[in-house]
Amino acid sequence: MMKKERHVLSITVENYSGTLSKVAGLFTRRGYNIDTLNVAETMDPGISRITVTVTGDEEVLEQITKQLNKLINVIKIIDLTAKQSILREFMFLKINCNKENRSEIIQLATVFKGKTVDVAAKSITIEVTGDEEKNNAFIELMRPYGIIEIVRTGLTAIERG
Amino acid sequence: MMKKERHVLSITVENYSGTLSKVAGLFTRRGYNIDTLNVAETMDPGISRITVTVTGDEEVLEQITKQLNKLINVIKIIDLTAKQSILREFMFLKINCNKENRSEIIQLATVFKGKTVDVAAKSITIEVTGDEEKNNAFIELMRPYGIIEIVRTGLTAIERG
Repeated sequence: MMKKERHVLSITVENYSGTLSKVAGLFTRRGYNIDTLNVAETMDPGISRITVTVTGDEEVLEQITKQLNKLINVIKIIDLTAKQSILREFMFLKINCNKENRSEIIQLATVFKGKTVDVAAKSITIEVTGDEEKNNAFIELMRPYGIIEIVRTGLTAIERG
Repeated sequence: MMKKERHVLSITVENYSGTLSKVAGLFTRRGYNIDTLNVAETMDPGISRITVTVTGDEEVLEQITKQLNKLINVIKIIDLTAKQSILREFMFLKINCNKENRSEIIQLATVFKGKTVDVAAKSITIEVTGDEEKNNAFIELMRPYGIIEIVRTGLTAIERG
């Protein structure tokens, strides 16, 4: 049986237009699902970092990593799953609310160190940052009120030390 | 003269493998630079949201939007630049530090509501969430200490109300 596991990869690339499309294409052509992905500049404006969460077979991932390394714009690939690393995800949650339950929702958000960023007549928007477990727990807590929208960045990660 | 402006687009797509690569490819083939991009599931596990920050000519963006709308897996495109929206970016900063300046750095981070997530002998890692202006100001503040690494998710956004 093939072993399916989730990996968080940090891929530094030269900021050449088209690299992102190539990297994403390489995963999908191999039947590898991209769970989340985010990309932004590093300290060097010429170099970007792609953080990608993928789930799939170990052997296929090895093949993909080899192919990624062959791409001219790929500088380095680190599998942060194997390292001591800190994982975080940022998310916005827009929740149904009314006069009666608004302060209850704000209070619950505070427990999760969430920040209320917008209040309207019938909705409230909260931002939360945390690991996946914390964020999913907060989503479950808010579900009974009626979630209007979730916007998540996907996991990002940095090596310890 | 062509008008170059930055846009934050929220693109909801069916979670079909390959959509991300196609969307990214559409921008780059038209010479449009993707500044940042992030993608994750929405409330519905079958639907993902791609938030993309792009800079370029207005007319070309209109053409790209039309082409994106033609992609079978694209459900909706919202230009959040034109709306009342909240923009945020999450980032990790790993900074050089020693016994002498460690508490100074932690204190400065607190002013920016940054959270110290790792302390090693010669480095410290801080997480910060904010709009671009705040995050860039914090980067500038930390620069003199020596920044080892920056990991950013890229901008994410949600409509108000």
